[in-house]
Amino acid sequence: MLLFLSISFLAQSQSRMKISLTDPLPSWNESASKKAIIEFVSKTTKEGSPEFIPVADRIATFDNDGTLWSEQPMYFQLAFAMDQIKAMAPNYPEWKTTQPFKAVLENDVKTLVASGVDGLLEVLAVTHTGMTTEAFEKTVKEWMATATHPVSKKHYNEMIYQPMLELLKFLRDNGYKTFIVSGGGIDFMRPWIEEAYGIPPYQVVGSSGKMKYEVVNGKPVIKKIAELTFNNDDDGKPIGIHQFIGKRPVFAAGNSDGDYQMLEWTTSATGYPRFGMFVHHTDAEREYAYDRTSHIGKLDKGLNDAAKNNWTIVDMKNDWATIYPAGK
Amino acid sequence: MLLFLSISFLAQSQSRMKISLTDPLPSWNESASKKAIIEFVSKTTKEGSPEFIPVADRIATFDNDGTLWSEQPMYFQLAFAMDQIKAMAPNYPEWKTTQPFKAVLENDVKTLVASGVDGLLEVLAVTHTGMTTEAFEKTVKEWMATATHPVSKKHYNEMIYQPMLELLKFLRDNGYKTFIVSGGGIDFMRPWIEEAYGIPPYQVVGSSGKMKYEVVNGKPVIKKIAELTFNNDDDGKPIGIHQFIGKRPVFAAGNSDGDYQMLEWTTSATGYPRFGMFVHHTDAEREYAYDRTSHIGKLDKGLNDAAKNNWTIVDMKNDWATIYPAGK
Repeated sequence: MLLFLSISFLAQSQSRMKISLTDPLPSWNESASKKAIIEFVSKTTKEGSPEFIPVADRIATFDNDGTLWSEQPMYFQLAFAMDQIKAMAPNYPEWKTTQPFKAVLENDVKTLVASGVDGLLEVLAVTHTGMTTEAFEKTVKEWMATATHPVSKKHYNEMIYQPMLELLKFLRDNGYKTFIVSGGGIDFMRPWIEEAYGIPPYQVVGSSGKMKYEVVNGKPVIKKIAELTFNNDDDGKPIGIHQFIGKRPVFAAGNSDGDYQMLEWTTSATGYPRFGMFVHHTDAEREYAYDRTSHIGKLDKGLNDAAKNNWTIVDMKNDWATIYPAGK
Repeated sequence: MLLFLSISFLAQSQSRMKISLTDPLPSWNESASKKAIIEFVSKTTKEGSPEFIPVADRIATFDNDGTLWSEQPMYFQLAFAMDQIKAMAPNYPEWKTTQPFKAVLENDVKTLVASGVDGLLEVLAVTHTGMTTEAFEKTVKEWMATATHPVSKKHYNEMIYQPMLELLKFLRDNGYKTFIVSGGGIDFMRPWIEEAYGIPPYQVVGSSGKMKYEVVNGKPVIKKIAELTFNNDDDGKPIGIHQFIGKRPVFAAGNSDGDYQMLEWTTSATGYPRFGMFVHHTDAEREYAYDRTSHIGKLDKGLNDAAKNNWTIVDMKNDWATIYPAGK
């Protein structure tokens, strides 16, 4: 009995020492944002504290594009769609003269964007629907393993943020469940997200389209249909959180006004302490610098209202010692 | 070093003994179905076995109505809706003479059912939409705490199946993640399911309607809108599984033809062993007996095809020693 007690005590002491000696966020510079994060996790996980949150309610939600990985010069899912159009083009000679495909084939992003929502939906319809979920998953995996970013020349899944990986792990190590809540498509994200972030597919909330279940030659398949049924952005984020997660988060991280409502929904709730944060893209040298006037990841209202809502602004340039994982 | 090894060995031996000495399914009679379940869990969790399934892929899905709790003489969610209509009736005197409300007020289920999908949707619209998700959750909790079943006189959440509670726990104890995949509404299920089954809200897949995010007097709310957007039954179940879970289950349990596609989607997949089962309602004395011709929980095609698909049929009368949790 005494033996077991001593071993148990030893293990506990070691565990305590480990916590105090190891920095859980080594890629974060000592900054107000790092301090705020650590204080939040510390106070909400301390048994007996009035700000303690039971494990079952430790729900943390993260936007993906611009929050967990880069999103410039265009959303990576759009880069995927453009690459698919190019790969399919030999079978569609008419695309050489038909918009928005012509713009894609000529890498003319400006004209593509000018084609508006309808043009983008046309590109998404051709590249994201008409096939089975299995075939689409295979295409995404192949693209992720081979395609590279036009500027960094890295694979896209190497452009994830090391400081955010540490934050995800820090939260999980403290009993938090981490969820993705992204405007990106669920079928585009799930094939690579588990490996990249350690987040299983059933903790990925995203946009999705209509699907059809069919039995073809005795084999059941799910086909992707060209009709967007849920757009998980802006107002859609709290709704997606309600429908998929069913609990109000206590921690939410985003980087753009598309995440405003997610942060609002999270931090206006009562009963527990809540944490809202925006990753502010301020690093033109190591990543990108953009906010109020950007076409992608516009952050304007969020910056205006951060102080009054007590939301933490993470200054990428000053708060992050590294951007991407080492050796990648 | 030797000390730690011995302790570790001792702990392992104890753990092995525990497994061999304790019956994980004490409310199941010794039967072919019990044997099949235990064999499946045993072989899929044995390291080194060719049939081993890694923890990340141990996904088990369960229908709710008729699989985890009773569903006669009508779906309990419909009983909830009827009780709500009765509670609201004083404010709607015209309901006394207007169908389908007249039928509800007169407990005339036959006429109500005869009003068809449109009639039922009208009842659901009035009782399930127009309020905030918060208000609806409160109503469900109050009803669950007070309403009683017309025959058993139990609270509805006491009419859950003890043998299935043991099965859920047995799977979870062996690294399986358990999900509900039900035709019921997510907002009706989530307020009580965590306590009843130990399944958190983000592992509940169900039907849902349109929602609207609004900020009212500075306080954000989500309003439930009268438009069904996802019917998680029949073909909808594999689609719901794909959209919410994102992995193909290895274990699926249902009780009606509405679960046929979920079992088909689960057990036709390759790569791992798969397990499909139907709870067959054969116990007119302790619960209900119904299958091929029932209006609720019809099980016909499933019975026909069970043998060829290697699906296990659980004979409620013969395979279950008890039905409901003791003392309830």
